[in-house]
Amino acid sequence: MTIVSEPSRCSWIESANLRDCDFPIQNLPYGVFSSAGSAPRCGVALGDRVIDLGELETVELIDAGAPVFASPSLNRFMARGPSAWARVRRRLVELLSEGGDRRLLDDHDLRARAVRPADKVRMHMPFKVDGYTDFYAGRHHATNVGMMFRGAENALPQNWLSIPIGYNGRASTVVVSGTDFRRPLGQKKAPAAELPVFGPSARLDFELEMGAVVGMPSRFGEPITVAEADAMIFGYVLLNDWSARDIQAWEYQPLGPFQAKAFATSISPWVVPKAALEPFAVAAPKRDRPLLPYLRDQGPMFYDIELEVRLRPEGAARATTIARTNSRELYYSAAQQLAHHAVSGCLMNTGDLLGSGTISGRSKDSRGSLLELTWGGAEPITLDTGEARTFLEDGDTVTFSAWAEGEDYRVGFGECVGKVLPAPAEPPWPGERENADG
Amino acid sequence: MTIVSEPSRCSWIESANLRDCDFPIQNLPYGVFSSAGSAPRCGVALGDRVIDLGELETVELIDAGAPVFASPSLNRFMARGPSAWARVRRRLVELLSEGGDRRLLDDHDLRARAVRPADKVRMHMPFKVDGYTDFYAGRHHATNVGMMFRGAENALPQNWLSIPIGYNGRASTVVVSGTDFRRPLGQKKAPAAELPVFGPSARLDFELEMGAVVGMPSRFGEPITVAEADAMIFGYVLLNDWSARDIQAWEYQPLGPFQAKAFATSISPWVVPKAALEPFAVAAPKRDRPLLPYLRDQGPMFYDIELEVRLRPEGAARATTIARTNSRELYYSAAQQLAHHAVSGCLMNTGDLLGSGTISGRSKDSRGSLLELTWGGAEPITLDTGEARTFLEDGDTVTFSAWAEGEDYRVGFGECVGKVLPAPAEPPWPGERENADG
Repeated sequence: MTIVSEPSRCSWIESANLRDCDFPIQNLPYGVFSSAGSAPRCGVALGDRVIDLGELETVELIDAGAPVFASPSLNRFMARGPSAWARVRRRLVELLSEGGDRRLLDDHDLRARAVRPADKVRMHMPFKVDGYTDFYAGRHHATNVGMMFRGAENALPQNWLSIPIGYNGRASTVVVSGTDFRRPLGQKKAPAAELPVFGPSARLDFELEMGAVVGMPSRFGEPITVAEADAMIFGYVLLNDWSARDIQAWEYQPLGPFQAKAFATSISPWVVPKAALEPFAVAAPKRDRPLLPYLRDQGPMFYDIELEVRLRPEGAARATTIARTNSRELYYSAAQQLAHHAVSGCLMNTGDLLGSGTISGRSKDSRGSLLELTWGGAEPITLDTGEARTFLEDGDTVTFSAWAEGEDYRVGFGECVGKVLPAPAEPPWPGERENADG
Repeated sequence: MTIVSEPSRCSWIESANLRDCDFPIQNLPYGVFSSAGSAPRCGVALGDRVIDLGELETVELIDAGAPVFASPSLNRFMARGPSAWARVRRRLVELLSEGGDRRLLDDHDLRARAVRPADKVRMHMPFKVDGYTDFYAGRHHATNVGMMFRGAENALPQNWLSIPIGYNGRASTVVVSGTDFRRPLGQKKAPAAELPVFGPSARLDFELEMGAVVGMPSRFGEPITVAEADAMIFGYVLLNDWSARDIQAWEYQPLGPFQAKAFATSISPWVVPKAALEPFAVAAPKRDRPLLPYLRDQGPMFYDIELEVRLRPEGAARATTIARTNSRELYYSAAQQLAHHAVSGCLMNTGDLLGSGTISGRSKDSRGSLLELTWGGAEPITLDTGEARTFLEDGDTVTFSAWAEGEDYRVGFGECVGKVLPAPAEPPWPGERENADG
């Protein structure tokens, strides 16, 4: 029997112990990476390294109860359930911390295979998105948008304090950070115009959100409690719900946003396990209206996570920080959103992704979208380069980052980055003549 | 070289030649079935038989260019593309028609393995639904609903004549015909009430729709034309977009229907190939407002398909036909919906399912939902049993059927059936005391 001393809070991978490192031993987020000549597989970020979980599994240093890590997505591992998540996490802490199990540290060949420099790997989508749902749980955001679209009197929709409002998004265009995307084409109509026109969106925006990753399924036709929902959540990512405001304004009545949100949704490559966020759990905000019993708060399920948005124009030497806020601004937890999602009997699956809704604070510089930061384009913001912005220009890069601040470490999310490419050329649409067929 | 005479329009499976048979040799719809002790695999319906395509593929009588049919979904076959679809269909006609290729007909052992009585097999979901999108292309339906919800003045939304309005639905709860489902729980608020209550939906409804099955993917970031979209469609099914009207009314502003539609969507088990519907293609309806170039009609892409809805209460000897209409009532074709869906750069995938929107005709008995048939519950309908209905009761079975009528044959869709089970028991929600945590 090997006697393993209590793992310390430091790692033998020294870059993980730096004060501002996003990925200390307390974090251990999961992702999918590839390196030259090898297929995508599961890994863990630690300092400036990526640990190849497929290798550790092959040599039986970790065990999720079934082979799951030599896989191009985390779905198999997630489907093993909370006890496997906890067991693997415990083993990783033992193997990777100073004074822990030395079997990886001492095996030079294995270390060469399993411990990769993060700057030499390519990150992929960490999981296969089964369904993508976007919620609307940011109270300041909902109020701001409501004021712009419906006036101050009706700013917050009547149902907002009772329902974690959400809509189904498009899973096929959830992309990993670093995937550039084209400005979308679509229909838009100026307020004074009688008819819509077609063309590239002129009011392209980002939305700062957290994404919750559902690890365990529910059952068709069966509701779940908030506590059960919380136990089903595997972890969290950063999420950018790119939005075309002009397309949205014209299409969203009566059935909600559709093409305005369908062209791209970016997520950060590393899924921060719920376990790593537990030290940062905080209580729910004050409830203006009591929640219905099925949604009641069950202990602290919100998180104290700092969020930051940076914007860098094409060619600019550096990015400008344009917003800072905190995920505590959310009114509904991911667990409450998930419980609501399943309460009708809707089957929730491993790999479902739940966007929190845009997170905005009370102050002007804490707003999580350009729509709010520039108040619908009326009040441009000025970047460090001197350029003004109302909405995104071609070549703009938007970067989100986030971290929970511990006493002597931080649990970071890394970055969620996306760059706007010019709209695609329009195909040759059929002429008027062919239209006579119709 | 085998000389094969021109296939006749009759099959050597005689039940396929009956005048009212849904599945003649002109149809050949694809599905997934299992029989005692064997795994689900792809098949084709012909008369009262199911042809095992896995068997025909194994003995090399059909060839899609890769092994695809010993699979529990049609997705692999669909991903082979339109030329493979056409080649397999041609071969099936040769093998199954009177006077065609006799290699299946003459091989008794093979026939015993490959030709199964339809009443001895179990049907499964015909394809893995990658994304489910529900449109709103029924003009009478949109007008009726608009009148009830927004008044006669604003019945048809302003954008409706320009945009094939749609929203993303929940793919995980698309179920095959015959799957019973529980009445959903959810939030609802009476118009006069100040606050919502939680409980089983009291206004449970069906919606009569067609579903288009996307066979070929688009490319991320690239729009497609209507003609390209049409070529990507593999076939069509019947679709019941079950809806909880009370949940919907309270939740749908501002982001659209969510839990009101998430608990179940039923589809018929047989995917009728687009090729089988081509003789029934009809021109687009008159356009009140010219469509934007990217949506222009490109030849006949609508279909003349008769639709029927029957309702049978628990224990009743027979069902009552409560509505009859035709899919020609749709204002946007599936190809136009798909082109719109992709125009923003949204990636469309093999296995995407597009609901047409509820199909209602002009007359009262041609309305495709109880909401419209009973005018929001104000005008109950009477069933043949003498019972009245406003919305669905527990134990009610709703059956859709559909067929395109040829000169001496019909191309039928079979049935799309679902039965309402009582709502599930509510779990023990946490009491007020635990709520103090929050």
